[in-house]
Amino acid sequence: MAMRNATQQVVRALEPSLTRSLHASPGSKKIVGVFYKGGEYAGQNPNFVGCVENALGIRSWLESQGHQYIVTDDKDGPNCELEKHIADAHVLITTPFHPAYVSADRIRRGKNLELLLTAGIGSDHIELPAAAAAGLTVAEVTGSNTVSVAEDQLMRILVLMRNFLPGHHQAISGEWDLAGIAHRAYDLEGKTVGTVGAGRIGKLLLQRLKPFGCNLLYHDRLRVDAALEEELGAAFEEDLDAMLPKCDVVVLNMPLTEKTKGMFNKEKIAKMKKGVIIVNNARGAIMDTQAVADACKSGHIAGYGGDVWYPQPAPKEHPWRYFKGQDFPEPNYIVKEGKLASQYQ
Amino acid sequence: MAMRNATQQVVRALEPSLTRSLHASPGSKKIVGVFYKGGEYAGQNPNFVGCVENALGIRSWLESQGHQYIVTDDKDGPNCELEKHIADAHVLITTPFHPAYVSADRIRRGKNLELLLTAGIGSDHIELPAAAAAGLTVAEVTGSNTVSVAEDQLMRILVLMRNFLPGHHQAISGEWDLAGIAHRAYDLEGKTVGTVGAGRIGKLLLQRLKPFGCNLLYHDRLRVDAALEEELGAAFEEDLDAMLPKCDVVVLNMPLTEKTKGMFNKEKIAKMKKGVIIVNNARGAIMDTQAVADACKSGHIAGYGGDVWYPQPAPKEHPWRYFKGQDFPEPNYIVKEGKLASQYQ
Repeated sequence: MAMRNATQQVVRALEPSLTRSLHASPGSKKIVGVFYKGGEYAGQNPNFVGCVENALGIRSWLESQGHQYIVTDDKDGPNCELEKHIADAHVLITTPFHPAYVSADRIRRGKNLELLLTAGIGSDHIELPAAAAAGLTVAEVTGSNTVSVAEDQLMRILVLMRNFLPGHHQAISGEWDLAGIAHRAYDLEGKTVGTVGAGRIGKLLLQRLKPFGCNLLYHDRLRVDAALEEELGAAFEEDLDAMLPKCDVVVLNMPLTEKTKGMFNKEKIAKMKKGVIIVNNARGAIMDTQAVADACKSGHIAGYGGDVWYPQPAPKEHPWRYFKGQDFPEPNYIVKEGKLASQYQ
Repeated sequence: MAMRNATQQVVRALEPSLTRSLHASPGSKKIVGVFYKGGEYAGQNPNFVGCVENALGIRSWLESQGHQYIVTDDKDGPNCELEKHIADAHVLITTPFHPAYVSADRIRRGKNLELLLTAGIGSDHIELPAAAAAGLTVAEVTGSNTVSVAEDQLMRILVLMRNFLPGHHQAISGEWDLAGIAHRAYDLEGKTVGTVGAGRIGKLLLQRLKPFGCNLLYHDRLRVDAALEEELGAAFEEDLDAMLPKCDVVVLNMPLTEKTKGMFNKEKIAKMKKGVIIVNNARGAIMDTQAVADACKSGHIAGYGGDVWYPQPAPKEHPWRYFKGQDFPEPNYIVKEGKLASQYQ
């Protein structure tokens, strides 16, 4: 989560729960927050609030009102710290980056729970039907994060399209081989970029892409209104399978749901152009992990980037770890007998 | 040089020289091109024209008109291939990426020379006063390259601001340390970005930066016209030394001249904010090499990126080679006793 304004947004999201009571337990509430450890970095930047030590910057505010605030990074297994506090917590604050899985069982045992607050985008780590059945509120504090994600996506598009990493590796290793970089470095200008999903982040990405002179496409369940479509300069694609073969770059901007889990499998990837670039800052589990690894190995995918994995933390031997950005095989847009592959003509 | 349209642009630039004669030598001309070797990559992508093997894609066109086209990467020392052909070449094609230094001495010995064509931006590898005195034409074929450079600059701004490289290193090395990345990753939104020079590339960069919600500044000898300034959303800074302390990001977009050589020395860098990010895709020699290395080591410069070095090729032990993107010291915007450095308040 981006740092700017995060604390104020969390305060606004918490206030309704703290000032009224759903379970006839007025007064002091118990808030449990699950974050990753900041360690040595926590003290270096007070704007870095998303860690255990800085705890979203709300401790003094909560405690001054008589509430109890428990913070931990220990979230898994029957003996973890989180388990000790589930039974009497009123509010549980979690993040997608270090997700505390809020299962139906945990919800059942959290008899005082009123609010599940996600500090970040996407609450797929929460069993939503169980939360709804228990009468809970699930809310996301996402405002500042949407800009971060859109910026990150555009960075990753450029890094892959312009073949940044091999040049970086040469710079630090003492090499000098211009041809090794230039022969597969391309401009983004003139390329077709499609976003699967045009919600808050997808729209911010399209706005930032507009001056690059790309052909912009978007797929979503609903078409955005005509004025915004005109402003974004993006064309609606009702049929995802019709959009995918057109795209030099595919960006994923949809939530992880039962429908989208593993959606980009071998068959879906096969519909994309050979040499496609995929950017996924949505959720790792939207992809079929092995299908992505295989398509990168074969060259069907020329570049895959993102900041999400499944599971998180990603194990040391996760198959995406080998994406070093320098040893992808040649993509299949290579020319035979003078004929360029269709996407480069 | 970007690949798209490069061949057509070179053809247009050569035509006047080939169809008329400045030295009463009509008919067949001798054109010498100096490029880097493409090696194994040359055959894989026919759009990769800037290498010796593909020779800008103009060989068949030149030879069909009866001209002679010599291409080499061997450009240095008294016995190099270039030296053998200087005496009777009519046209010399060079690039900034693998620069053939066109000294006054070479110009003097090139008695047939009519045209020095730079396939790329910047002809600082040519002794321009000597070329002018000899009555030569010096031209640059730059069109497609300006977009490439602006895209590359924006990529490098995002890579440094968002702290991309440590995350990449973790991904491939098997680590998982979110705090190690997040504590110094920032959004570009809200930051002040200043370009030193607002020529063709500077303007393209400002256009692409506009949707990011930055505070945009530019310094140049001349103010751009009011309508364009309005469109770019950038404020003019007449005094470079007044602009530098305001910038979170400084981008260099000026040519290398006697005036700009070594311009960003210790004193100039000291005028910048502590924790500044510098992107230099202009020329390596604009910077004082050691001053940049020292300021990165001290943390005054939090990130330095670019695709230019001095000299080129950069030697293995060039002091910028240590910029691994992971072991910069903590920049000085760290907080003491609860007070944020001014640029982060």
